[in-house]
Amino acid sequence: MSSPHLAVIGGGQLARMMQQAAIGLGVRIRLLAEDDNASAAQVITDTIVGDYTDLDTLREAVADSPVVTFDHEHVPPEHLRTLEAEGHVCRPGPAALAYAQDKALMRMKLATLGSPQPDFSLFDPVVDLGGVQNFADRVGGYPFVLKTTRGGYDGKGVWFINKESDAAAALASGRVLLAEAKVPFVRELSALVARSASGEVVAYPIAESVQKDGICQEVVSPAPDLDPTLAKEAQRLAINIAEQLGVTGILAVELFETPDLRIVVNELAMRPHNTGHWSIDGAVTSQFENHLRAVLDMPLGSTSPHRSWAVMVNILGGVVDDLESRRALVMAQDCEVKIHLYGKSVKPGRKVGHVTVCGDDFDDVVGRARAAARLFVEGDTHE
Amino acid sequence: MSSPHLAVIGGGQLARMMQQAAIGLGVRIRLLAEDDNASAAQVITDTIVGDYTDLDTLREAVADSPVVTFDHEHVPPEHLRTLEAEGHVCRPGPAALAYAQDKALMRMKLATLGSPQPDFSLFDPVVDLGGVQNFADRVGGYPFVLKTTRGGYDGKGVWFINKESDAAAALASGRVLLAEAKVPFVRELSALVARSASGEVVAYPIAESVQKDGICQEVVSPAPDLDPTLAKEAQRLAINIAEQLGVTGILAVELFETPDLRIVVNELAMRPHNTGHWSIDGAVTSQFENHLRAVLDMPLGSTSPHRSWAVMVNILGGVVDDLESRRALVMAQDCEVKIHLYGKSVKPGRKVGHVTVCGDDFDDVVGRARAAARLFVEGDTHE
Repeated sequence: MSSPHLAVIGGGQLARMMQQAAIGLGVRIRLLAEDDNASAAQVITDTIVGDYTDLDTLREAVADSPVVTFDHEHVPPEHLRTLEAEGHVCRPGPAALAYAQDKALMRMKLATLGSPQPDFSLFDPVVDLGGVQNFADRVGGYPFVLKTTRGGYDGKGVWFINKESDAAAALASGRVLLAEAKVPFVRELSALVARSASGEVVAYPIAESVQKDGICQEVVSPAPDLDPTLAKEAQRLAINIAEQLGVTGILAVELFETPDLRIVVNELAMRPHNTGHWSIDGAVTSQFENHLRAVLDMPLGSTSPHRSWAVMVNILGGVVDDLESRRALVMAQDCEVKIHLYGKSVKPGRKVGHVTVCGDDFDDVVGRARAAARLFVEGDTHE
Repeated sequence: MSSPHLAVIGGGQLARMMQQAAIGLGVRIRLLAEDDNASAAQVITDTIVGDYTDLDTLREAVADSPVVTFDHEHVPPEHLRTLEAEGHVCRPGPAALAYAQDKALMRMKLATLGSPQPDFSLFDPVVDLGGVQNFADRVGGYPFVLKTTRGGYDGKGVWFINKESDAAAALASGRVLLAEAKVPFVRELSALVARSASGEVVAYPIAESVQKDGICQEVVSPAPDLDPTLAKEAQRLAINIAEQLGVTGILAVELFETPDLRIVVNELAMRPHNTGHWSIDGAVTSQFENHLRAVLDMPLGSTSPHRSWAVMVNILGGVVDDLESRRALVMAQDCEVKIHLYGKSVKPGRKVGHVTVCGDDFDDVVGRARAAARLFVEGDTHE
């Protein structure tokens, strides 16, 4: 087998969708997957199965690859620094990735950049509850948000603090916590950019994402009725963060849009992101292809959308165990729905696939995308 | 590993591009490839390496798959009939495939359907040269065409007979030959349809293909300035052939357009076809996805194009051995070019990849697609 061009750490659906783009470009991926039936392991021939927290396993996975990239942000930073010291090129690198891995670092860095973000403070677990009241006083009272600084995702590791005693469970976690003022917002936006190793940057249209219980449900690109000045500002903000943090690959900046038409940074992700999945079917160059191009230092591709609207709806595990049995029903219902199944077993609330519909009539496109996802999740439309 | 949904016989670029569609749909393919570095074997984890002309190898490849389909039309028909007798479902089936495998059978069948085609005759190799003169007399003189009835492709096994003695080499091949009147034509067209196992049919726009030395160079979809009545007629013709021959999957009907605005059937192919590669980037549903949907008896997807024009240009092996070294140059030249490399070693004239450009300005799109392919093949634009 020929040497890989790229090692990808993590066998989830993001690596799986990278492989679709890699096939076209002729890019050979070596994958480090958690198990041999992981989503991406099913479709990448050159797969090593092992634990990404084990340094020797990482060394084996990246041995023949000039470049290393990631399906997730959970590789221990000290291992990444060791790999770099041993001559490997991680993209994004550990210095950039630290800001996606640690929310406290991210907040402090964005503060130095002057990026718009909520007021925040760090809580050490040994601090008494008086600190909670102090923070509430500072940000204008309850509610506010406590988050673990590391490892939280999809709504895990986040507590909404409506009164002082609500903080007890969070503080009992024994972890360093980030307190953030609750931002009043009208909706969530996502600014997705790709930045290549040479520093070329492209921006996707600003998308709106609909979250429920901290999990992305639906993404509309472009965000409907978004003020063009605010859209430009969001793109410039994401580009500035990518450049100032030295990100290589895709950077997703999750934003709140406030009632007074401002944007505030919620989270950062340094990998292809759920809010960019629409680009596979809806843009000239998908976020997965641009991630590969960026980390392999190739020129980036056009982010132009094919149609006026692209709507992506996640397929979250529901009452239907066998997604394949629903596939033909969805196709029969709508011949323009694009289906993406991740090869994962169904668990309640787990992201197991997504659907995208593109078109020029907003209500039509939204309705059809939701109907397709509903048919996967709920099964029979007569229910 | 989970059981495959589909066995694909043949490890070429068509199977490779099927896999890109299969990843999205969650379809698991088992591949029978010629060698472990074949184009599709590089990207399909469940691959068996072996000889598709060996019955036991075929049996092993299809053992766990409810359905069998093909990257090429060269599997011996007697083996396909044996597999069917043993309970496997081949799509397309051997009865349909026979018409793509044997040009004489195809001509005789199309004659019974009344499909427009050139005057033809069969030559047995033991027949003397007198038969050649007789055929020339019947079709209005030289030139005419002799073809091997089986196994020819990309210009191989075709002889242009300008005078009686030109036939000597063809007849010396010792094979049964098909003589066809030479059709005066203004250009070549392709009518591509997908037909599912249940009989649903969809048609792609009629494309124009530019051939050189019998090898497809370039495809424009839709065919420029094609008379709408003739376009409809070509689609109806292809649908009729798919139905009458019982084709399941993609059927490509290669056509001549004559100076007096008629269409004449040149060749049939029962698999995804070079003239449909534009659909990966240019249509809602690619021919590869619709092939999978058709053979797995799922409802078919929309064939609507994204933009006014899609132009695909093949990357044929030229002076540049290392395509990967050219990839970044092509990207830098045009951020909207879609690149498809097949992972094959470069040999002169060999199809090793293709590029597609979509857009609304015909001259612009054609020029950019050609420039991208030229950069891959010829290397430096200053040459």
